Amino acid sequence: MFLQSLSIETISFWLAIVATIAFAVTAVLAIADHGVDIFGVVVLGVITAIGGGTIRDLILGVPVFWAKDLIFAQVAVFSSLLAFAGRSFFTQPQIFSLLLYLDGLGAALFGMQGAMKTWTLNFGLPLAPILLGVLTAIGGGLLRDVLAGRKTLLMTSEIYAIPVVIGCSVMMVCLQLFPSLDTEALIGCTVLTFLLRTAAIYWHLRVPEWLMTKSRHT
Amino acid sequence: MFLQSLSIETISFWLAIVATIAFAVTAVLAIADHGVDIFGVVVLGVITAIGGGTIRDLILGVPVFWAKDLIFAQVAVFSSLLAFAGRSFFTQPQIFSLLLYLDGLGAALFGMQGAMKTWTLNFGLPLAPILLGVLTAIGGGLLRDVLAGRKTLLMTSEIYAIPVVIGCSVMMVCLQLFPSLDTEALIGCTVLTFLLRTAAIYWHLRVPEWLMTKSRHT
Amino acid sequence: MFLQSLSIETISFWLAIVATIAFAVTAVLAIADHGVDIFGVVVLGVITAIGGGTIRDLILGVPVFWAKDLIFAQVAVFSSLLAFAGRSFFTQPQIFSLLLYLDGLGAALFGMQGAMKTWTLNFGLPLAPILLGVLTAIGGGLLRDVLAGRKTLLMTSEIYAIPVVIGCSVMMVCLQLFPSLDTEALIGCTVLTFLLRTAAIYWHLRVPEWLMTKSRHT
Repeated sequence: MFLQSLSIETISFWLAIVATIAFAVTAVLAIADHGVDIFGVVVLGVITAIGGGTIRDLILGVPVFWAKDLIFAQVAVFSSLLAFAGRSFFTQPQIFSLLLYLDGLGAALFGMQGAMKTWTLNFGLPLAPILLGVLTAIGGGLLRDVLAGRKTLLMTSEIYAIPVVIGCSVMMVCLQLFPSLDTEALIGCTVLTFLLRTAAIYWHLRVPEWLMTKSRHT
Repeated sequence: MFLQSLSIETISFWLAIVATIAFAVTAVLAIADHGVDIFGVVVLGVITAIGGGTIRDLILGVPVFWAKDLIFAQVAVFSSLLAFAGRSFFTQPQIFSLLLYLDGLGAALFGMQGAMKTWTLNFGLPLAPILLGVLTAIGGGLLRDVLAGRKTLLMTSEIYAIPVVIGCSVMMVCLQLFPSLDTEALIGCTVLTFLLRTAAIYWHLRVPEWLMTKSRHT
Repeated sequence: MFLQSLSIETISFWLAIVATIAFAVTAVLAIADHGVDIFGVVVLGVITAIGGGTIRDLILGVPVFWAKDLIFAQVAVFSSLLAFAGRSFFTQPQIFSLLLYLDGLGAALFGMQGAMKTWTLNFGLPLAPILLGVLTAIGGGLLRDVLAGRKTLLMTSEIYAIPVVIGCSVMMVCLQLFPSLDTEALIGCTVLTFLLRTAAIYWHLRVPEWLMTKSRHT
């Protein structure tokens, strides 16, 4: 009942707002140990928050999402400024640990939303929704790391994007089998992705050696 | 009288040509101390000169500006070759200092032009013109630095983009209040941005410590 | 006779499949000495294989090629996984040497195909086909190197992209003079580009000192 009374658009909108805030704040903290000024902070925060979705929309050939709903760009700018002002608060170990989970929630939300948008547009099914879901989730962070001269997450053994790949893949299977349950698939797979990422953070899980090109101990 | 006899399109066109030359030449000099061949020089010069505007046009969803006016790409290629050939001349301290101001003029021109184009297209007002103005001004330089393995300007305390932010913001206020004075706003804010950048170069101004994530002395 | 019985679309399609495999496999090997997990391997392999063509299509304002022909993205994913699984085989000196030539073939194929697509769309003639041909050939590799934290080929004196510039330029001259011989121009210039790259690999040719910004020995 509850799920049916909320349109998928409404749910997607609010999830995206939460994810935008999470991404902008964690982006600022990720670069806070470098000497960055307030301009760089806002640029990197905004790029992290809306960069992945922007590249996705360019590839989909649709107007970028933040031109229609300017609120996303505004939230990204404001969250970055907030994170800058409150960085001594946010970098406390316990708060930072909380933000790590929040960032994982953001990746899950953005990833599933990107995959759903691609599926709704009937674009390159079934592979493209997975590729563009992952791009939405990690694209902004990759841009941030490259611009900040940091090692990108592709070059680590952190389990960050693999939950998104699993979540998007499961969602595609669900949507192929039960196309009418799109809202349930979106929510269920977002939860699944977030739980997988949470487990990875909590138990310090790493990609096993045999799935890496080189042992990390040599 | 004078300002009214020139269309805003004509002024924008010629300012963009000057900015294209300035960006291509300073880009080549910025990477000249690395061992780059003539191919790399032209690629990095062209990307610096037309990269920011290209990304802006993709986000705006309009044809890239240099496809219609091929002159911009031609000028970028030619200026890069010229800067390569004359690099021993351009790298003399006094000439290089002059180029630093010229580069600041380019950033002012590109920034205001990008903001004006976004405003003219009625795209995501009033925030998007500022974001895309800044992107037009610094996007090409960011691409260049990333491709050349240099530290991007986001990670410095140089006052380079902040004048563009101020110029674009002032222009948006002017255009909201006096929409008919678009040519005057474009020229006035370009001059304002350039003067701010000039002051930053001349007096070696830096972003104050309290606007940075970390003291630059620790 | 033979050339006339095959449409230019059919030839382009199969050449692009070969190039996609070559790019994905060599991309994986290029980053194999870093500790990358299977997710990073696939992402970097896919980006290398389809990244250049994707940026080209965005600039051309046409749907990205792999949305219509999903086979390209599928081949890129599969080739990356294959290269990961067989990396101990592929990194043998003789096999790796073979792959270097295969990668040169990929660059020639992608470059000429990108230039031809731009010419067919009558986009920014005659300069844009050369710029976008080069972008198609090296764009994916540049993205890979930037994301992997490697030095991009722009900062080396390797003769990799210059053959593509020559091939695209010769093709533009041919197409201006003999527009009806497009299939022949495509094949001839692909062979020319590949031969130039082959010569550069075989004889360890480097860009001569006077075409570099700085001597590589100082």
